[in-house]
Amino acid sequence: MIKTILLNNRPKGKPTISNFEFTTENDNLTIKEGEILLETAYVSVDPYLRGRMSDAKSYVPPFELNKPIQSGVIAKVISSKNKNFVEGDYVSGLLSWKTQQVSNGEGLLKVDGSKAPLSTYLGVLGMTGLTAYLGLNEIGKPKAGETIVISGAAGAVGSVVGQIAKILGLRVIGIAGTDEKIELLKTKFGFDAGINYNTSKDINADIAKVAPNGVDIYFDNVGGPISDAVLFNINRFARIIICGAISVYNNTELPKSISVQPFLVKNSALMQGFIVSNYADKFPKAMQKLSTWLTEGKLTYTETIVDGFDNIPNAFIDLFEGKNKGKMIVEI
Amino acid sequence: MIKTILLNNRPKGKPTISNFEFTTENDNLTIKEGEILLETAYVSVDPYLRGRMSDAKSYVPPFELNKPIQSGVIAKVISSKNKNFVEGDYVSGLLSWKTQQVSNGEGLLKVDGSKAPLSTYLGVLGMTGLTAYLGLNEIGKPKAGETIVISGAAGAVGSVVGQIAKILGLRVIGIAGTDEKIELLKTKFGFDAGINYNTSKDINADIAKVAPNGVDIYFDNVGGPISDAVLFNINRFARIIICGAISVYNNTELPKSISVQPFLVKNSALMQGFIVSNYADKFPKAMQKLSTWLTEGKLTYTETIVDGFDNIPNAFIDLFEGKNKGKMIVEI
Repeated sequence: MIKTILLNNRPKGKPTISNFEFTTENDNLTIKEGEILLETAYVSVDPYLRGRMSDAKSYVPPFELNKPIQSGVIAKVISSKNKNFVEGDYVSGLLSWKTQQVSNGEGLLKVDGSKAPLSTYLGVLGMTGLTAYLGLNEIGKPKAGETIVISGAAGAVGSVVGQIAKILGLRVIGIAGTDEKIELLKTKFGFDAGINYNTSKDINADIAKVAPNGVDIYFDNVGGPISDAVLFNINRFARIIICGAISVYNNTELPKSISVQPFLVKNSALMQGFIVSNYADKFPKAMQKLSTWLTEGKLTYTETIVDGFDNIPNAFIDLFEGKNKGKMIVEI
Repeated sequence: MIKTILLNNRPKGKPTISNFEFTTENDNLTIKEGEILLETAYVSVDPYLRGRMSDAKSYVPPFELNKPIQSGVIAKVISSKNKNFVEGDYVSGLLSWKTQQVSNGEGLLKVDGSKAPLSTYLGVLGMTGLTAYLGLNEIGKPKAGETIVISGAAGAVGSVVGQIAKILGLRVIGIAGTDEKIELLKTKFGFDAGINYNTSKDINADIAKVAPNGVDIYFDNVGGPISDAVLFNINRFARIIICGAISVYNNTELPKSISVQPFLVKNSALMQGFIVSNYADKFPKAMQKLSTWLTEGKLTYTETIVDGFDNIPNAFIDLFEGKNKGKMIVEI
């Protein structure tokens, strides 16, 4: 039987298992000329999916109720009537949360499991790595010797941002929520310093201590009070890259923060939101850089791999508890 | 006697007359080789001076206690031992709140009262005009057909921003605090629509009504709840120019607003603070544009001229009550 996960109802606040519905259908999927039959191998769960589960106006349409949820997926071609794909190929793309599905191949990229583990094409060699590389470079415009602070630093994007910033010669400070994550930042990813926001008594002061020359770039994955604390430490002409705001995605009321405007005007600072597809023309060059660094051993990554199709919703929910280290992926 | 206005103590919250001290000294000022003696003609009072009256870290050092306050001033050269200036010249520059003072001429620009009224060199042909032109163009990157919202629209900078935006072919919406100001925006400055934030029951909805295609550029002079309301209406790739935050300058506690980060990430929007001196290399070209538009009658301006040196502090305080229309200037 083919299993599918549908959006049953829209989360109010934190997503729960009851927002999802599991269905099954018979597995005699047939393909027409030009189509391929895919078997799902890895599913990416990402904080941004929370946005698509709401019906608020956004840059991408919301998921429809009672339709399959979609995210980044690595799948194996199990039969093909499309000249671009042969049986046994692996592809990466935006696909449905189904164990098998038919595609016309549009928007799918072939990935090579002999060059790098398949799951990395959802992570450091996929949207995650591109988001880190392009957000940092296009908005942050990093210069050697500058100081960067990264929130959600042990997450999929944050841990890549920090490593790239180190390669480029910056002082790198990560903010994360457990001592274990802070240790990982410093030992595995080469961060210069880390701050545990759950045990820090004064994040603002703790940043000042490890960033004695102030903060030139802030790569913000979380929003909320952590981002407020960073503002007190920004330098003139600081660049603040707004990649995500996971700390407030589940708020049912509009979140309040300190007013950023006085900080921006006082420091001639920039704050810019983005999604990676804004820079689609720069994907090939970015991907080449990331692959090279990965091959050279300059870039490493952490994955939290959860086993089993049925665990996709729980893996997604766990993101909001910070239970992942690095990229959260479900292996089918 | 020469009169001087000193900073007596730092304002807590809204400035009051007791923050200032008037002193006098004898008027036998003598000048040395290379110096000029100046008599103050016009004094500019501006919201940004509030920042310099605090001792918080900023891009410019705070005013010192018991020292004269400084701002933009037009002064007449009454004697000169400097080859660049002759008696009778008028100059513009950052000078002290004194009826007479000695200068070595550094940083002073000669201004020509026969080309435009002297006071305009503090306004539309001075820092005010440059701030409007450069903030709008360098950060806003306006394109014909786009929609701009301007807060503090009837103020010195806002009224010039709106006119430039009209010249460039944008739909221009101004937010101000009285019906009289809204009328002025529409009749004198050619704005397409205006919103009185004091009588509007729902600024967010009122913006949506007059900006049916959303807001592409927001020129923000005020911060606070007005700016929160604009956020709900921004388009993808919106540019938010943070020129000032007069609504919160007098707050004694850190002002809170809705979190901007989710709006910025959802819309790939940019928010950038600036001060005009960041773009000093672009002053000559900007000044030329402004002069041309003024001469051609495409640009007009409003001044609130207060009479008398002793009224400088009150004119400054009145800024925070919105008592000025356009540029607030004290004529000595």
